[in-house]
Amino acid sequence: MKTEDIIKVNGGVCAAKGYLAAGVYCGIRRNRTKKDLALVFSKTPANAAAVYTRNRVKGAPLAVTKAHVDGGKISAVICNSGIANTCSAGGKELAAEMCKLAGDALGVAAESVVVASTGVIGQPLSISPIAYGVPELVKTLSRDGTDAARAIMTTDTVVKQTAVEFTLGGKRVRLGGMAKGSGMIHPDMATMLVFLTTDAAVSKEMLQQALSGDVESTFNMMSVDGDTSTNDMVLLLANGEAGNEEITCENDDFRTFMCALNTVNIELCRMLAGDGEGATKLLDCVVTGAGTLRDARKAAKSVICSSLVKAAMFGADANWGRVLCAMGYSGAEFDPEKVDVSFRSAAGEVEVCKAGSPVDFSEEKAKAVLSENEILISVSLGEGGYSAEAWGCDLTYDYVRINGDYRT
Amino acid sequence: MKTEDIIKVNGGVCAAKGYLAAGVYCGIRRNRTKKDLALVFSKTPANAAAVYTRNRVKGAPLAVTKAHVDGGKISAVICNSGIANTCSAGGKELAAEMCKLAGDALGVAAESVVVASTGVIGQPLSISPIAYGVPELVKTLSRDGTDAARAIMTTDTVVKQTAVEFTLGGKRVRLGGMAKGSGMIHPDMATMLVFLTTDAAVSKEMLQQALSGDVESTFNMMSVDGDTSTNDMVLLLANGEAGNEEITCENDDFRTFMCALNTVNIELCRMLAGDGEGATKLLDCVVTGAGTLRDARKAAKSVICSSLVKAAMFGADANWGRVLCAMGYSGAEFDPEKVDVSFRSAAGEVEVCKAGSPVDFSEEKAKAVLSENEILISVSLGEGGYSAEAWGCDLTYDYVRINGDYRT
Repeated sequence: MKTEDIIKVNGGVCAAKGYLAAGVYCGIRRNRTKKDLALVFSKTPANAAAVYTRNRVKGAPLAVTKAHVDGGKISAVICNSGIANTCSAGGKELAAEMCKLAGDALGVAAESVVVASTGVIGQPLSISPIAYGVPELVKTLSRDGTDAARAIMTTDTVVKQTAVEFTLGGKRVRLGGMAKGSGMIHPDMATMLVFLTTDAAVSKEMLQQALSGDVESTFNMMSVDGDTSTNDMVLLLANGEAGNEEITCENDDFRTFMCALNTVNIELCRMLAGDGEGATKLLDCVVTGAGTLRDARKAAKSVICSSLVKAAMFGADANWGRVLCAMGYSGAEFDPEKVDVSFRSAAGEVEVCKAGSPVDFSEEKAKAVLSENEILISVSLGEGGYSAEAWGCDLTYDYVRINGDYRT
Repeated sequence: MKTEDIIKVNGGVCAAKGYLAAGVYCGIRRNRTKKDLALVFSKTPANAAAVYTRNRVKGAPLAVTKAHVDGGKISAVICNSGIANTCSAGGKELAAEMCKLAGDALGVAAESVVVASTGVIGQPLSISPIAYGVPELVKTLSRDGTDAARAIMTTDTVVKQTAVEFTLGGKRVRLGGMAKGSGMIHPDMATMLVFLTTDAAVSKEMLQQALSGDVESTFNMMSVDGDTSTNDMVLLLANGEAGNEEITCENDDFRTFMCALNTVNIELCRMLAGDGEGATKLLDCVVTGAGTLRDARKAAKSVICSSLVKAAMFGADANWGRVLCAMGYSGAEFDPEKVDVSFRSAAGEVEVCKAGSPVDFSEEKAKAVLSENEILISVSLGEGGYSAEAWGCDLTYDYVRINGDYRT
């Protein structure tokens, strides 16, 4: 499988065959110009895999969704933004009622509907706007997933969707998805809300194996602010409409599917991190030469999580000592005296640290490199052959402004 | 031992008998109005205990200091600010040379001098300003520790020193100290630079036991920005000049000494966190009712480390869902449905969450409570009898400004 055989195509959650979606304003948010309720529908019931937040305080919808995903095939997803339905009495009953409303309107069982909520924690969510919005959602279902992707946004500033096309056993297959998330992003075995759909035929077990494996190198390697959300979820639906032979073991088709999934998820990670609350820059840290994969991941993630690295990148300041400091407390094993660090962007590359000691570099060049909106922080540990990549964003005045008064 | 028997007295590192200190400008910093070299001298060689950063990337002075502390009694401390002497070739030799310069000028062995540096990582430190500054330091040694406390400051905005007086076996004893630190503060088994002195007689073993035990509930429960520094160090010197019977086991005197040490260290923690880079507010999170001490500590520390909680406090926004979220990913064991949360300050108290669900509170009152400069976040877990306290600060525009361009 060559990655060039995976072609990027337009669309997102409806790029694969057999999926429809819609997004409307139903009255959960005060701002009527923002959509707040989304629906995704698969005409053919789909195998489903999901990963959820490890936060001990969990959103009420997660329990309902988990029971439905574990129970059998999934036909639809209903998701609201504005209120997280978390830390509020009666949340589970309300989440179940959302599934019933969507199921009844679509003519499918409530148990085949996945539910998700995102927004403020600790405020009660009312069923009435949802009951009002569901008929409108069903009426406006279409092959364009953009309104749905817009309706799940909170502090996001851009719609996040992507899709690819590839071949499985001679059949053309598509995989696409949408994501939301801008703050409270520090996924732990899961992520913000991500809904992925494919028309590939993949057994439930292999679908879960693919998703659980991939998030370790994608969503779990991303952070905006170190805060693991209560409502994180990644859902992957496979309805089999592409007509390929169902993937039921780790064969070549499975590996191809994993490549496609990884392509889509990395793209969504970059979109999420680049649109981090207040962010002006996407940070991409690549650590090579680690003794183990675990060390590579710990080091890369620690760099993009460091408030000091993030603030330095905002200021286009080549303060590489903070990169070494962040790796030093990451728990990764390495010898500081073997570390090389460079910064790279569209404006070029500047080497700043060689074998743990300063390199005499041009401050002017460094300033130019770090003034671009995508910065690669490249680190070589000189220990072994493992590498990892992590995504984050800079820490800016706007992050403080947005989060100094998000609730009121 | 009642805590009221521990009396606060003026001064800091020279409050106890037999200690002298000085601070001068020697030319390491570009800004001539800031002092950058400090010296502390104990006429009677002192037993010494120390804890150091767990960051894998360690400042060169730490290795030299550790060898000297492990080797025997300590007579002096030399410390510069401006450059951290970390990630720079020849750093250890330079740190050893600093000890020799100070030792020669004071007429004590180089091995009886502790050395520390704080400032930018990855820039070479030159010996010449230090050689220039040491004679001036020795000439200006006095019983006032304020100049020394000023000379170790980096982005600190206030001098941090405190001292107490108490009684051991009928003898009046003093314990005091100075600290620096404002950013890159997230101590792990150690902290920023803290130098503590006492005239109590305490054996080296019991001194280390007291210090190692106390930092777990003081400096290790404090964070400004989640970044564990490369140069953290807490040093405690005991020269015995108070004439008390030497503490050599866990007797009543040891417990009294621990109480005094805890009083001084909590005061320094509050000073450090309250003067966090850009901070406008000191945050104090008290978690009670935890099932274990470990759970209480994890939960409290996670709350004061959360960027979202910190930004909400800056905005005086009673967004208590973020407090629950931060505890949820802390690793502490608890049932979200038993959690109570309230905010308290000089302006009063407001209960915001009861048994994991929202309380109907006055937003106006909450705004008033959270607009003060010291905020207590009080959490009850309802699980058991353990409690813990952690100290932090709000996340502000100024933190971003200071760290967007600290180096250049």
